[in-house]
Amino acid sequence: MLTLVTGGARSGKSAYAENLVLSSGLDPVYVATAAAHDQEMARRIEAHRKRRGAEWMLVEEEIDLPGVIGEQAAAGRILLIDCLTLWLSNMLLAEADIDERVARLCDALSEAQGDIVLVTNEVGMGIVPENALARRFRDLAGALNQRMAALADRVVLVVSGIGVTVKP
Amino acid sequence: MLTLVTGGARSGKSAYAENLVLSSGLDPVYVATAAAHDQEMARRIEAHRKRRGAEWMLVEEEIDLPGVIGEQAAAGRILLIDCLTLWLSNMLLAEADIDERVARLCDALSEAQGDIVLVTNEVGMGIVPENALARRFRDLAGALNQRMAALADRVVLVVSGIGVTVKP
Amino acid sequence: MLTLVTGGARSGKSAYAENLVLSSGLDPVYVATAAAHDQEMARRIEAHRKRRGAEWMLVEEEIDLPGVIGEQAAAGRILLIDCLTLWLSNMLLAEADIDERVARLCDALSEAQGDIVLVTNEVGMGIVPENALARRFRDLAGALNQRMAALADRVVLVVSGIGVTVKP
Repeated sequence: MLTLVTGGARSGKSAYAENLVLSSGLDPVYVATAAAHDQEMARRIEAHRKRRGAEWMLVEEEIDLPGVIGEQAAAGRILLIDCLTLWLSNMLLAEADIDERVARLCDALSEAQGDIVLVTNEVGMGIVPENALARRFRDLAGALNQRMAALADRVVLVVSGIGVTVKP
Repeated sequence: MLTLVTGGARSGKSAYAENLVLSSGLDPVYVATAAAHDQEMARRIEAHRKRRGAEWMLVEEEIDLPGVIGEQAAAGRILLIDCLTLWLSNMLLAEADIDERVARLCDALSEAQGDIVLVTNEVGMGIVPENALARRFRDLAGALNQRMAALADRVVLVVSGIGVTVKP
Repeated sequence: MLTLVTGGARSGKSAYAENLVLSSGLDPVYVATAAAHDQEMARRIEAHRKRRGAEWMLVEEEIDLPGVIGEQAAAGRILLIDCLTLWLSNMLLAEADIDERVARLCDALSEAQGDIVLVTNEVGMGIVPENALARRFRDLAGALNQRMAALADRVVLVVSGIGVTVKP
């Protein structure tokens, strides 16, 4: 079972996804794509960490998500990958081959045992950004979200903390 | 009955909320958080005022929403508070204690008699703003919307003027 | 039958609208409002063109959409107009009388024979833009989307490639 949880910044999508994971009764693994490169990020990571309890196993991975899924996904387990847009941002910074890694992510998700919940961001509903890199990021994130939603068994849009099922 | 009406800029959320209020048959009170600090704002306030009819009582309050709710909410009445993101913006400008005022707003809403309709903005579905204050505003608005949606009996997302019930 | 397909940038709204058109069994006419003024735009137009097949008739029109609808709409045909926000942007650049053209668009849509699918963008769910022209564009796009949604028989919000019916 693959679930995609999408929503705006500070929409409550991570908390929603965590509840989904905990209510599954499976063993939860938190796959964090965030790296504490600055203070603002460090505070956000710490806030997320505090909200989650001790039952979670934690894996930190900025780039190789397909590898982590291959290693960690297993029957009886549920992976929460938080979040895809940060992963994309990490790949841009590292000048990784994004097309190739997205293709490998699709393969890894298709082959994975156990359940997976992906968290992503809606970033395309504002005005066109003036910055060319921001426009490229927006294009890549939108294309990635479309591919993930096509693969997913269930897609939920979180609005003000409330999940709206978009693909049942 | 507490209703939260959310939506993007110029999505028709205020007009939607006004119709909700008028169709209730209760005595309508318009609580405006907007202040005409510049010409653009003055034009918007005037456009809103013209659309509403004479049956509305008008209360203007930039900061003390909990106080207004305490004074104005009453059985047989319906308050339209338009809008929460502007209230947040006013508090940021006034360097008010936002956490304390949001906590008091939650209390005031829980204790209020009569009906209340809150209008707010979705601001987190664009690209991450470069401006740190804009990021802080986005975080505060998202967190406020989540708390309001949790308290509300009903949450409606307005898309192109059409209300989509998110929390029935 | 008038359908409005709305969604964020790179949300899959064009592909969704194209599928809608092709599954209708009517003769498809693609009305492109895009002009290849720069390389980025030329690439996007080319990608769209490649995805569509040879069965489409193509009409390119940057400004006079009401005229195109008057000429092209006909029983047995389905027009895909992609997209309204670009049309708005073209009118702003050309300093056209937007109010008058939007009024004529509404008339043309009301009188049109055959089916029409309109594609538009959600642009109001990000932070308030610092740029005054961007704010004006956002206001105009929101107002246009509301008018189109009020006229439409069906409104669909596309989220990560998945259509959510907003007005059934």
